[in-house]
Amino acid sequence: MKMLLLAAATMAGLAVALPAAAQFQKPEDAIKYRQSAFTVMSTHFGRVGAMVQGKVPFDAAAAASNGEIVVMMSRLPFAGFVDGTSANTKAKPEIWTERAKFDAAAGKMQEEAVKFAAATKGGNLDQIKAAAGNLGGACKACHDDFRAK
Amino acid sequence: MKMLLLAAATMAGLAVALPAAAQFQKPEDAIKYRQSAFTVMSTHFGRVGAMVQGKVPFDAAAAASNGEIVVMMSRLPFAGFVDGTSANTKAKPEIWTERAKFDAAAGKMQEEAVKFAAATKGGNLDQIKAAAGNLGGACKACHDDFRAK
Repeated sequence: MKMLLLAAATMAGLAVALPAAAQFQKPEDAIKYRQSAFTVMSTHFGRVGAMVQGKVPFDAAAAASNGEIVVMMSRLPFAGFVDGTSANTKAKPEIWTERAKFDAAAGKMQEEAVKFAAATKGGNLDQIKAAAGNLGGACKACHDDFRAK
Repeated sequence: MKMLLLAAATMAGLAVALPAAAQFQKPEDAIKYRQSAFTVMSTHFGRVGAMVQGKVPFDAAAAASNGEIVVMMSRLPFAGFVDGTSANTKAKPEIWTERAKFDAAAGKMQEEAVKFAAATKGGNLDQIKAAAGNLGGACKACHDDFRAK
């Protein structure tokens, strides 16, 4: 478990260490990329959510597979929040004016995603449910502050 | 290496085994999902491509990190090609009328993605270049037949 957290933190660190703006040729590319990463993440988080909510039968292998995708995707979108990419999106200007707060909220979500993925590997539905709740809460907290309705 | 290929094949099998249509509430969700998965995949493939083409300095750790994302993303988009989701997209009707051929092209891409990820882990730029060429070729072959210009 500690190794998993460490490995995930190292990966996240790697991603953060790359110069974000240099990775995209145009602002639109950065916007499309981050939105795509969130779409994939939320799709797979939603699949486990459906199990947790009893809408579909619990499938431990599928939950673990989805959890692995969620944690990998959680590392990606923030590189796409490059300067000058707020207009015509739901990304509030506060992302850039309150960057430390935004980064902390993103980091909190990434931490919860690591714990969520670990829970999906464990195969215990109650633990998955608790971890999913925490991850969903971290998503919502950031959306409340930094995403337009 | 064999273990990696085996593990990746098992994962791909898992993804394929899920009933695709049941995973999306609306056709638009399936379209958005598959397009998003391709966007994330091509972004990270492109980052290694830039190294291979000498546009950015070779960074073995970054290449391996990108390769890991590419191979995971390569497994995802095909679940989004559910029936009735051709209109208003670049997805040609042939995807559904020649499904076996499409599935084979998708499978070929996924195989090349596994080899590409293995090459990025190896850290040898020439091998990464060769594997990137093969993966790019598999992308193009499928686009030529199944994606509208």
